[in-house]
This record gives sequence, structure tokens and C-alpha cells, in this order.
Amino acid sequence: MPPNTVNIPIRRVEDNSASERDDVLAVEEPLEILLGERNVSITMRTPCNDEELAAGFLFTEGILRDRSQIAGIAITGENQVTVSLTSDAGVDLSRLERHFYMSSSCGVCGKASIQALETVGCPSLATDRPVVQSDLIHRLPELLRSSQQVFDRTGGLHASALFHSSGRLLDVREDVGRHNALDKLIGSRFLNGELPLDDHLILLSGRASFELVQKALMAAVPVLVAVGAPSSLAVEMAQRFNMTLIGFARERRFNVYSEAWRIR
Amino acid sequence: MPPNTVNIPIRRVEDNSASERDDVLAVEEPLEILLGERNVSITMRTPCNDEELAAGFLFTEGILRDRSQIAGIAITGENQVTVSLTSDAGVDLSRLERHFYMSSSCGVCGKASIQALETVGCPSLATDRPVVQSDLIHRLPELLRSSQQVFDRTGGLHASALFHSSGRLLDVREDVGRHNALDKLIGSRFLNGELPLDDHLILLSGRASFELVQKALMAAVPVLVAVGAPSSLAVEMAQRFNMTLIGFARERRFNVYSEAWRIR
Repeated sequence: MPPNTVNIPIRRVEDNSASERDDVLAVEEPLEILLGERNVSITMRTPCNDEELAAGFLFTEGILRDRSQIAGIAITGENQVTVSLTSDAGVDLSRLERHFYMSSSCGVCGKASIQALETVGCPSLATDRPVVQSDLIHRLPELLRSSQQVFDRTGGLHASALFHSSGRLLDVREDVGRHNALDKLIGSRFLNGELPLDDHLILLSGRASFELVQKALMAAVPVLVAVGAPSSLAVEMAQRFNMTLIGFARERRFNVYSEAWRIR
Repeated sequence: MPPNTVNIPIRRVEDNSASERDDVLAVEEPLEILLGERNVSITMRTPCNDEELAAGFLFTEGILRDRSQIAGIAITGENQVTVSLTSDAGVDLSRLERHFYMSSSCGVCGKASIQALETVGCPSLATDRPVVQSDLIHRLPELLRSSQQVFDRTGGLHASALFHSSGRLLDVREDVGRHNALDKLIGSRFLNGELPLDDHLILLSGRASFELVQKALMAAVPVLVAVGAPSSLAVEMAQRFNMTLIGFARERRFNVYSEAWRIR
């Protein structure tokens, strides 16, 4: 697998002076995901945790429901990963057709509306838990920063971090694509049989789009925290499915866009 | 057309105190792009300039080459725009098939490799012009900020700005999706018959991915400036096609990743 950063010579300009130096870049390369012999997706990603990315993508898009459907995951070529299914996996290929149709551009992996997500059947969240202290939310960005390995060097990666509702940092994944970082994070838990994540928080290093809320909902994440702004549809979807959505979480401030009762 | 921002009630938490207030969100909604009767793309976008977005997408993805191929563009439904072609448009539908295949996930609209872009035939850039002063690059982010209408209120939009090489700001487009902001910007020029943009600079408010470099190359933009980091593949592609790629342009600093001779 290629490295996830590269060094290249650049020219640095500060005011009116220039100097030659090396810079560290986040690697971006295509990954083709095959389900059996069938191409399901090509995504631009940072090489690393490709099996998790493939599994997470198939799960958060509603194509796979349980790791027992997977017979194996293998790197089958340069920038290609193949997920093979058990003979009784019962994957709904018509859903895959729809997926192809719906996701022909960027940012929409599969379901372009709340109605569609309802038909895929994402899990309902408990309406009485978890409840977390606001001070925990304030601490999350710092906990993420202290554990991020690549971001500080390249400035070019998005991160997704998984926390237990007690505040313990469980896992971090990074990628040039924010949806990939989240798929890797959820894919890791999916492969370990550790879903649903219904007593957990996920922190996103950037903005919260519709798509990221949808993916977190598939894993039953009750509290999604973004360092940046949410979109209108992200808020609408969080409200519809009783997820607590938080934005602009930085410098001991944040905004709660839905289900504020989970924050004390 | 729906508004591009919405107001919603939120809870704002600062340290240990909370207050109820209104917040402004960037609208995110799906847009279906039809070419004749055929669905080409669904993208999550901020409603505004949908005709430009459709035209820009079809051009930067190599599906359309000239505005004369377009008989008309119409809003044909809620969140749906239809581009109808002239009888002699000669659109290569096999390319469209490939497009479907290649772009089934996020961030890859059409061509997943530099080789693919070579076959699509993006224009070559002049190797002797334009040349711009470093001080102009320093000024671009401030020029963009002073003209951005929505960003300051929502913090949730990406912007793409078009400048003449003399430093004159010509146009700005905003969107929740950075590829959409760029497609709108290029689409506007495409529809006005003002391509190629070979004496121009484009400023991106965020990071520079492979996809954004590819789209700018289709419009023959010689200097692409990003406020954030570029990815490895963005740099590789800029180098291959002789584009000057600049990153981290802020606070009177920037990095030049390719073709530094265009910056004096």
C-alpha cells in the first residue's frame, strides 16, 4: 500500500521573499471497490485502511447489513479492493442499481432524500439516552488534535473521531475525503462486530453535510459533533431521526441544532 | 427557486451557559441534472445558478464542448434541471456511460486518472504566460472575502472566484459543494461563450483536490490558488498539464506546487 503522505519540493513565498523547501502532502488516489465481480464505487481516498473503507462504505450506504455477509476482503490490485460475499449473503442487487443511479455525481452516496433513507431503514435512536455534559463537547476538538497523526503535517486531511459517551477517545481515521474518513471509522467497528454505536459520539473535523449525518445514522450514532457548519439538510435529517447535531464546536463554544436534551 | 440560506432556532453553548437564538444555515438540496431525457447526475448543491451548475458540470466533465451544442436549459421540476441538445450536438453517449461507471462514489466526476483526462483532451496551457506578481496572489483572499455574500453568515459555503490576471475580480460562486461552486463559475463563462479562461486565475476557498484541478484544466485556467492544502494527485495533475498550483494562500504567504515561473 502506498504511503499516506508524500514529500515534494515547493517554492514558499512570504511577503516578497521566496525560498525552496519541501512540503508534505496528503496522498489522494482512486480506490475501486468491487462487490464480488461487480464495480460498486470509485472514490478518491488517502491509501490506508482500505478494507475498512470498503466495508464501511457498503454498510453506510445500506448495501451490507452485517459483517457475516462478508466472506472476505482482499486487495486485488493497485488501488482496488474486493469484498466477496457468502453464498447466503442475500444482498439486494436492485438496491445496488438504484445506488448507481443516485450517486452519479459527488457527495450523494446512494440516497438523495430523507424519504430514501427511511426506506433503507436506518435504526431509530433511543429518545432517553445518552446524556453528556457540555464540558465533554468542549474537550472533543482538543482530544482529536492531540491524536491526529497526519493532519498537523499536511493540513489536507479530514478526520473522524469516535468517542464513548464517557469521553474516552476510541478511534480516529483520516482521509482527503471526509466521507471516507467516516466510512473508515464506521467500517472498522462494523468489521469488529461493534455496531451499533448507540452510546457514542462522533467528531468531524470539518463541516456536517447531509451525507455525513446519513452515514452516522446508519451506525445509530446519537451525537454528531462538527467543528464546522452544518447544512440545512444535515439539520433536517438529524431532526427527523432524533440525532443530536452540534456544529462550530471550537474554543469552548458550540451550537446545538437538534435534540438538545442530550447535552447538559 | 428555494432560498440559499435558512434561519433556524438553535441552542448556543458558551462555556457553561446556554442561550436560545437563531442561526443561518446554507441550504443543501439535491439537484438532478438531465441531458435530454437522460439522468446524468444528482448532486447535493445550494440552490442558485442551477443552469450554470448544469452547464458547467457537463462541460468540466467533458460531456459538452461548446455552448452551441445546447438548445436550451430549463428548470423542469423541483430540484431538477434539463439541458436539451441541438439535433447535431453529437454528444458521445459512450462517454456518458463511462462517466456513470467511473463516478459512482464521491469526488470523482468522470475521470479517475490522469490518463483518462488525457483521452478526454483537456486543452494545453501556454508555457510563456500569464505571469503575475506575488503581491497579487497575497491580495486574492481578501478580495474574495469582501465580495462573498453568504459565507460570512453561514460559515458553511465553499467559494470559487474568477480573477483576470491583472487582478480584477470578475465573478464569485458559492455552494455547499466545492466542485459545484467551481462548476457554477465555469458554467457561467461557458454559457456566455467566454472560454477558455487562459488569462485568468481561480481562487478556491478550501482545499485543492484532483477533481478541482481537473475541472479548472478543462477551462484552461493557468493559475489555480487554494486557501487550503492541495492533495498529492492535485499537484501531480497540475505538473502534468503545466498549471501553476498554489496552496495555503493566506496571511501574505503561499506555497507554489508547480510551474512557479508564472509568479514573480
